[in-house]
Amino acid sequence: MRAAIVTVGDEILLGQIVDTNSAWIADRLSMEGILIVRKTSVGDVEDDICSAIQQSFKVAELVIMTGGLGPTKDDITKKALAKFFECDMVFSEDTFTRLSDLFLKRNIPITAAHKEQCFMPDRAELIINNRGTAPGMWFEFGDRMLCSMPGVPHEMRYIMENGVVPRVKDLNRIIFRQKTIRTSGTGESVLAEIIEPILEGHPVKVAYLPAQGQVRLRLSVEGAKGSEVRIDQILQEAVRATVGVLGTHVYGYDHELLEEHVGNLLKSKGLTLGTAESCTGGHISHLITSIPGASAYFRGTIVAYDNGIKEKILGVKSITLESHGAVSIQTVREMVEGAIRVIGCDVAIAVSGIAGPEGGSDTKPVGTVCIAVGDKSDIKTRQFLFVKDRLLNIKYASMYALDMLRKFLSAR
Amino acid sequence: MRAAIVTVGDEILLGQIVDTNSAWIADRLSMEGILIVRKTSVGDVEDDICSAIQQSFKVAELVIMTGGLGPTKDDITKKALAKFFECDMVFSEDTFTRLSDLFLKRNIPITAAHKEQCFMPDRAELIINNRGTAPGMWFEFGDRMLCSMPGVPHEMRYIMENGVVPRVKDLNRIIFRQKTIRTSGTGESVLAEIIEPILEGHPVKVAYLPAQGQVRLRLSVEGAKGSEVRIDQILQEAVRATVGVLGTHVYGYDHELLEEHVGNLLKSKGLTLGTAESCTGGHISHLITSIPGASAYFRGTIVAYDNGIKEKILGVKSITLESHGAVSIQTVREMVEGAIRVIGCDVAIAVSGIAGPEGGSDTKPVGTVCIAVGDKSDIKTRQFLFVKDRLLNIKYASMYALDMLRKFLSAR
Repeated sequence: MRAAIVTVGDEILLGQIVDTNSAWIADRLSMEGILIVRKTSVGDVEDDICSAIQQSFKVAELVIMTGGLGPTKDDITKKALAKFFECDMVFSEDTFTRLSDLFLKRNIPITAAHKEQCFMPDRAELIINNRGTAPGMWFEFGDRMLCSMPGVPHEMRYIMENGVVPRVKDLNRIIFRQKTIRTSGTGESVLAEIIEPILEGHPVKVAYLPAQGQVRLRLSVEGAKGSEVRIDQILQEAVRATVGVLGTHVYGYDHELLEEHVGNLLKSKGLTLGTAESCTGGHISHLITSIPGASAYFRGTIVAYDNGIKEKILGVKSITLESHGAVSIQTVREMVEGAIRVIGCDVAIAVSGIAGPEGGSDTKPVGTVCIAVGDKSDIKTRQFLFVKDRLLNIKYASMYALDMLRKFLSAR
Repeated sequence: MRAAIVTVGDEILLGQIVDTNSAWIADRLSMEGILIVRKTSVGDVEDDICSAIQQSFKVAELVIMTGGLGPTKDDITKKALAKFFECDMVFSEDTFTRLSDLFLKRNIPITAAHKEQCFMPDRAELIINNRGTAPGMWFEFGDRMLCSMPGVPHEMRYIMENGVVPRVKDLNRIIFRQKTIRTSGTGESVLAEIIEPILEGHPVKVAYLPAQGQVRLRLSVEGAKGSEVRIDQILQEAVRATVGVLGTHVYGYDHELLEEHVGNLLKSKGLTLGTAESCTGGHISHLITSIPGASAYFRGTIVAYDNGIKEKILGVKSITLESHGAVSIQTVREMVEGAIRVIGCDVAIAVSGIAGPEGGSDTKPVGTVCIAVGDKSDIKTRQFLFVKDRLLNIKYASMYALDMLRKFLSAR
């Protein structure tokens, strides 16, 4: 099955937001063995939407649309769909009831614009959206299918998982299996040199997906329906061979995040964590607490942006700050000790660095970051030089700190 | 002038990388008053590339292409262009000389693949690429134009600025002006009800771009070349009218972020900030410190994930935690007081809530968040109910906290 994606909205066309939806949709559909052949973005113009749909159906059997379903005047996807499928708009009582209940709970008055949102093309089968107001719309004619969804990412994802994937799963005649191996602490080219000789004989495709101190390796195999057992076996063997040579570069699989992985390590070892952050400004703490259940092992954080806080709360010695500087191995070492004492945690991470764009010097240029990870008996330290912009320096430092924590905990 | 963008490459189509190029191109061209009407992404397939070009020329006079110009086998944009424009491939001595010089300097041997890269469609005018190996290609036929560029972002930007923008600047007969008004603390539909009657008579287009507690309103006007003064005036009047009715919902314009805006407010008033975070886990601190120069006004953060830290470091009374709970107005009020004292800042934000998915109760369901913002003499508090997933509850709580800080500081 071939699919095309159509995104609607001036904000994507005019470059005011980056379209992350269609990357996600393409990725999700490719997991189901569906080939994406085209993506088109158009503005909030009825004729442009219709012609994009028409041209997409020339190259694909399935068209996935996002955007243009909100309550405001510029959201006209529904009208374009009604025109394309030559159907009328009918009032959906179900949608109105769900919307009214939702708004009542949140104490929001129902406006005329909300009522307008409940009119739907009569040929559309509605897909419930438990994450927002506008439902998804599913159209079929002959062997062609179209699904229109809101552009809000978490709403779109909900509808894809609960409405689209189940509908297309059985229709596809190609099977596709993939496994993602997640690594941290090493770059793409180093990994490639290790893996490529090993995978020579394996009929798998490898994709490298690097992101801020991590690289995901996606191994995939494709085959005809009915050959599932053989395909699964090919994939398993390739994964085993890859993980075998990569060793401790690998931390997990598929959707497991590094922050989730270290959380599970802490939980299984019955240890608690705290962080003492300077240049990362709370980003490590944010990553760790974004994982459900983090309160079981995470105690807290001191963001010591000001040196006074490094001294007063974390107990870093003023002589250390004076002689080695705030960005030094000695300082982060004392920050770990202070964090364990004041937060009352078993293990702590400490980071101090120069995120930029200002504050660099010849000996410590922008991107210099010192990281320490340890407990009462042992502290590991490293100094890095990330040559990125401010936000990326923060993100790289956070990921490498989590990678150091992972290796520290794995060795316990 | 209307333009369409075509990106070539499986990595965008299959969602392995997010296409940031076309957002940049769209944004850049819209600054020149060129209206982007469509963006299409296709894979490295000759027929798909040709049909995307053909369909783009149906809706636009200018087609901008990126990708598929590298030295590897799957890069076939040039072949597709030669086929589309029915022309031959000729060896470009100029390109070869430039490439040889470049490689000599970097000590890289010239391979057959590099020589192959010097064959160009004979109808193409070449645009020098001082950032990489593959030059841009410019085609004209009748009143139609096409530019093909490499997909590497900094190479593409160089060719756009030096080759494309100068060529299209004078050709365009339409001018386009836009202004983005940034609001926080209110939803899209409420803003729409306030604005829409006011903008009835104004010949402007309005787009609503909502994102986690913020809505950007983009007002745009289009007109013929020569009418710049009138167009600017129409836009200014519409902006003035909109801002007039929206009042304090508006915090800034164009690219200004809320965390940047509050940073500027703090700087201009000579005040320092600290945060005491529970459910937001350091995300507010991360947002504030992601702005360059934040160290001028930001002191630090206590993430008190554990109640012991709320008591021990922030000095929240145990009687308060026992009788009102950790998620209560009373607790966040004491957290603000504690943060001001222990961090030594003038103003503090405190947040405590239930991010979910676990930890909710009948009286305090998941999504309940208490926020306090204040200084030594005055503390404002609010209780919210966000019905989102864990990460969105954290992001909404952070944005509303910054919104409360903005309003608190503006009233000083």
